Amino acid sequence: MTVLDIPAGSPFGVENLPYGVFSAGDGSPRVGVRVGEHVLDLSIALGDAVFAEPTLNAFMAQGYDRWVEVRTRLQTLVTGEVPAEAVHAVADVKLHLPVDVADYVDFYASEHHASNVGRLFRPDAEPLLPNWKHLPVGYHGRSGTVYVSGTDVVRPSGQRKGEDGPVFGPSTRLDIEAELGFIVGAGTPANTPVSPDDFPRHVFGAVLLNDWSARDIQAWEYVPLGPNLGKSFATSVSPWVVPVLALAGARVPLPGQTSPEPLPYLRESSPWGLDITLSVEWNGQEVARPPYREMYWSPAQMLAHLTVNGASARTGDLYGSGTISGADPAERGSFLELSWGGRDPLTVNGESRTFLQDGDEVTITGAATTSGGAKLGFGEVRGRILPAR
Amino acid sequence: MTVLDIPAGSPFGVENLPYGVFSAGDGSPRVGVRVGEHVLDLSIALGDAVFAEPTLNAFMAQGYDRWVEVRTRLQTLVTGEVPAEAVHAVADVKLHLPVDVADYVDFYASEHHASNVGRLFRPDAEPLLPNWKHLPVGYHGRSGTVYVSGTDVVRPSGQRKGEDGPVFGPSTRLDIEAELGFIVGAGTPANTPVSPDDFPRHVFGAVLLNDWSARDIQAWEYVPLGPNLGKSFATSVSPWVVPVLALAGARVPLPGQTSPEPLPYLRESSPWGLDITLSVEWNGQEVARPPYREMYWSPAQMLAHLTVNGASARTGDLYGSGTISGADPAERGSFLELSWGGRDPLTVNGESRTFLQDGDEVTITGAATTSGGAKLGFGEVRGRILPAR
Repeated sequence: MTVLDIPAGSPFGVENLPYGVFSAGDGSPRVGVRVGEHVLDLSIALGDAVFAEPTLNAFMAQGYDRWVEVRTRLQTLVTGEVPAEAVHAVADVKLHLPVDVADYVDFYASEHHASNVGRLFRPDAEPLLPNWKHLPVGYHGRSGTVYVSGTDVVRPSGQRKGEDGPVFGPSTRLDIEAELGFIVGAGTPANTPVSPDDFPRHVFGAVLLNDWSARDIQAWEYVPLGPNLGKSFATSVSPWVVPVLALAGARVPLPGQTSPEPLPYLRESSPWGLDITLSVEWNGQEVARPPYREMYWSPAQMLAHLTVNGASARTGDLYGSGTISGADPAERGSFLELSWGGRDPLTVNGESRTFLQDGDEVTITGAATTSGGAKLGFGEVRGRILPAR
Repeated sequence: MTVLDIPAGSPFGVENLPYGVFSAGDGSPRVGVRVGEHVLDLSIALGDAVFAEPTLNAFMAQGYDRWVEVRTRLQTLVTGEVPAEAVHAVADVKLHLPVDVADYVDFYASEHHASNVGRLFRPDAEPLLPNWKHLPVGYHGRSGTVYVSGTDVVRPSGQRKGEDGPVFGPSTRLDIEAELGFIVGAGTPANTPVSPDDFPRHVFGAVLLNDWSARDIQAWEYVPLGPNLGKSFATSVSPWVVPVLALAGARVPLPGQTSPEPLPYLRESSPWGLDITLSVEWNGQEVARPPYREMYWSPAQMLAHLTVNGASARTGDLYGSGTISGADPAERGSFLELSWGGRDPLTVNGESRTFLQDGDEVTITGAATTSGGAKLGFGEVRGRILPAR
């Protein structure tokens, strides 16, 4: 038996306890929880076969009461003695995609982001469209190309608008979108809409998400049916799933929704705004600090919207918040906005940048702050651009 | 042992042999092939555990050479003696969703449909958008709400545009879209685009597909990110998967693509137009005969487009053709077009109809015609509307 070292103020202390899927050496992927700089193998520590699965899906499908029970046990367990063979250093393990993604939906819930994009893509019109403050606008993305942090991203090729009809080639405006992703643990059957107040009974946890975007491909293809190939080549997520049970301590009010008021199916008794700040590093230099607490729509409202038409939700469904951009220019979560459509290059390590160049690496980190002042770390989502094939 | 009765001219003769998943009595779902009015249990007839699976996915994942081998064996087997215990009457079995759907994408490949919708939704603009003849426009839909034929559809509720901001309630413009759906059997890894000529090595077969659509919800939500809740409540598919190996006999030229010519990645050595005619019945009365041979983009081009940006494709991916509408008004595959946005009601069994009423039932059937004149039946995709909850 051994005792886990948890440094004071660690973003991976007992108030966090995020779940992930790891493998050590030749071992098979299995479920672990991160404690300080350790990974605790739950298949050993709790002796339950559900944690020997290669994804979190089976555990998540056991439902809310079980999530509470396991978390309560872990909070006791990690502060006492644990089997030495269940403990690994984070640096020594390989981290895997934590869930088998069912449906993937991406929202568009930052008013600052939607306004910025509106100004850039439709300069002669009102930046916010008439529906935007009435519903969380979103669309389905490709679940088969959701990758874990560290997966390289090959520059996508596709059609973009040319002088004289479209031209084909590698994207010249490759971008990121810094987001949070929410993972449905306990689904809902068809024709049973979820109330926003039931969000914590259905959504298991959250990850950082980078919605890589080829702006030139997207601009040419997206009218009238929305983004497709400009997004579908890759979406990256962080490996640690921070439980909603932990994030409940970081709830804050939403910044808007007074005029107009949301329709009844979108109203929350107590809002699910979250005090989470992201940091975007481009080749190691921080270029933005997107504030999640400024998002207009909450993740609870997103789930209510997704299911209000009778659509079911399934274990493993993933939905992104949309790009997180704050009011301040240094809080913008995409290079499209940070460079204002390429007009205002950034200086990154002394080099000029608008969109991504081959070899560039982007790392997004983030942490929630609870009302008690504790930090809940998300770890990172990282990706490097390889040249087009 | 017994001999299967295959009536002359049956749309389920040896040239077709569609696969499905059925259960008989208390038996578990398993793979069968339809022969005339019989279902042959392949787990017994071929004695292979892959056919005892509850979906076609494991068999499909075995790849093209295996599909050819099994089809060749079946063409001999069904004309000789088969084990009596492997034979069921179609009328006696329950049919299930044949595949575990991975990603679902819906295209928009009929020029007549896209033009009609353009005229109805954007009356003051060119009906076809500038990108339409350069790429098969499509978007991702919800794979978790793909249902097998016979599943009732509860009328969806949602937001629609009102006089004074949005109103919430049951959709008042509930519609169908008569389509074909194509099922990927053998996927492709990331960053390995599929040539249109490799379509039959990746796509296992085709089904009829009804993309139920709530036009009022869709019209309010779809700008700028495309359809979401107007579609995500239900998509129905027929239970029999007609093999591409069978459909190869029904290939025809595409009607367009001379001006402009498609970009090189979309060019086919020999086109994958298909001579398939659908029939749409509304409460038992035929209201349209959509001709698949008039589609602008082929399913081989759709797959090439989906993967050209480096996106992988997986076993179980489903992609819809988009509504099939011909040049003739009686060939339109949606009630939106058949009633011209509700302006011109149809008379159905003596009753006036524009969009679907509670209790209405829609049945879409279809058959391919081979160059030799054989009919390859698809069976049917059927659904009935239940009142909103």
